[in-house]
Amino acid sequence: MARIVVVGLGSMGLGMARVLVGAGHEVFGQDISAERLDAFLASGGKAVPDNRADAAPDVIVCVVLNAQQTEEVLFDPESGWAGHMAPGSVIVSCATVPPGFACEMEDRATRAGLLYLDAPISGGAAKAAKGALSVMASGSEAAFAKAAGVLDAVAETVHNLGPKAGMGSAMKSVNQLLAGVHIAAMGEALALAVSQNLDLRQVVEVVSASAGTSWMFENRAPHVLDGDYTPRSSVSIWPKDLGIVSDIAGGAGLPVPMARAALEQFKAAAMAGDAQADDAAVTRVYARAAGLSLPGEG
Amino acid sequence: MARIVVVGLGSMGLGMARVLVGAGHEVFGQDISAERLDAFLASGGKAVPDNRADAAPDVIVCVVLNAQQTEEVLFDPESGWAGHMAPGSVIVSCATVPPGFACEMEDRATRAGLLYLDAPISGGAAKAAKGALSVMASGSEAAFAKAAGVLDAVAETVHNLGPKAGMGSAMKSVNQLLAGVHIAAMGEALALAVSQNLDLRQVVEVVSASAGTSWMFENRAPHVLDGDYTPRSSVSIWPKDLGIVSDIAGGAGLPVPMARAALEQFKAAAMAGDAQADDAAVTRVYARAAGLSLPGEG
Repeated sequence: MARIVVVGLGSMGLGMARVLVGAGHEVFGQDISAERLDAFLASGGKAVPDNRADAAPDVIVCVVLNAQQTEEVLFDPESGWAGHMAPGSVIVSCATVPPGFACEMEDRATRAGLLYLDAPISGGAAKAAKGALSVMASGSEAAFAKAAGVLDAVAETVHNLGPKAGMGSAMKSVNQLLAGVHIAAMGEALALAVSQNLDLRQVVEVVSASAGTSWMFENRAPHVLDGDYTPRSSVSIWPKDLGIVSDIAGGAGLPVPMARAALEQFKAAAMAGDAQADDAAVTRVYARAAGLSLPGEG
Repeated sequence: MARIVVVGLGSMGLGMARVLVGAGHEVFGQDISAERLDAFLASGGKAVPDNRADAAPDVIVCVVLNAQQTEEVLFDPESGWAGHMAPGSVIVSCATVPPGFACEMEDRATRAGLLYLDAPISGGAAKAAKGALSVMASGSEAAFAKAAGVLDAVAETVHNLGPKAGMGSAMKSVNQLLAGVHIAAMGEALALAVSQNLDLRQVVEVVSASAGTSWMFENRAPHVLDGDYTPRSSVSIWPKDLGIVSDIAGGAGLPVPMARAALEQFKAAAMAGDAQADDAAVTRVYARAAGLSLPGEG
């Protein structure tokens, strides 16, 4: 049984924290939202003690939104966890961040006597709740070993991508490039189908059985069919994640026109007021542009 | 047993023609390439008789490249088949064409006393050879009925998309939008992975099991891994098919930035000399731009 702090109790972090409780660990949850923390406390979790040193965590699992929040959680001079962790304990960092940032965090952790695992996650809230995530991880053997109990509990598959931080985040960016492009393409294709007077349910059925299908098409197109944009994963993720793709590609001199076209569509969706809607709402950007009517609207 | 003429004995048409022979039909093959025709004759097919009226086909299956070739095959004043078909026989048109063109062909066929099935196909050469294609078909009940023997033989799934030509072609365009975008995204993602020093085999393994996967990624990425650009489906398909997407979307006032970005990448691949290479060669456009080395090259 390990002592674990999970920072960030959104749909992914909350599921992971609950799975860790279920696996018999002592789990402290932390979130800026009192509501989210209460949800975790109601399912057997603990709040972080006033004196952080009392938590004495073996593992910090950091499931926040981005690089800036990750840095604050770990190394803020006042609130950062690094100062309260025993030497040899491990940071498991799950946010999607630039590979270079992950390397920098690993360096700082090493200088503080801590282990660091670059460990972006994939699979969505439903898999997080079942302990069935995919983890794209890189880091030292010692970091993998120290994090093994956590990884066993939260993941169905752990991809070991190498002995240094950065490779996990690079793999996640490759995945996000594809995932983001596929969602935007799904929206574009459904809008084209509406413009050609095709029956959308039949389109989803035919495409799902054809060479044009993708994991994202099969997962997100039903949201459009149902006119249900309750956020499972929100539009706001994509300007951030595709921004990272664009930045690291730019640093390598690689043009990424597909990722950039998708980025523009998600930005347009956010600017139109759908930042917190399900990312399938990118379809509305197309529908508005061409005056098309989607299911459940107009 | 029907008398069938298959026009266009490329990788799709040849497979379909052979399957029809295997199903016991009398099948006449036609192609501008003597080599392709010989391949068909060697597998039990017949050549079109000098006097076309002697073929007296119940069905013409037209598996040519585009709208222009389709129109010539059917309605050319000298060589078109329409003048040699008995009233009530059926044209099964499989090329990817604009929906409006399919409607026009149906009108002309109707005026000539013929039936017309708008019947684009999907599945590739391997499925064509096994009689396991998907057909996205629309047309009159009478056209479906007259074509039933052919459809039974060549297809695993026949999607009936409505009683008028045009819907089949519209569905095909929606599928091609997705398929083309997914291939370009595959190339972009693999190039990004190379630029980040990821192991490409591991990338294909991880992505194939993650939310970033697509049918095209899983089908085409191995060609890049193997450095094998032997054409199963060539780059040259995509400027044509994504051009149709762009045209019909434009006609509906719908911006299609994803399709247009992919179109540009395939045009760049064709201009760089890869028009007849496998469409996975779009990855080379990215690699060249960033000076990256792909498997089997450099």
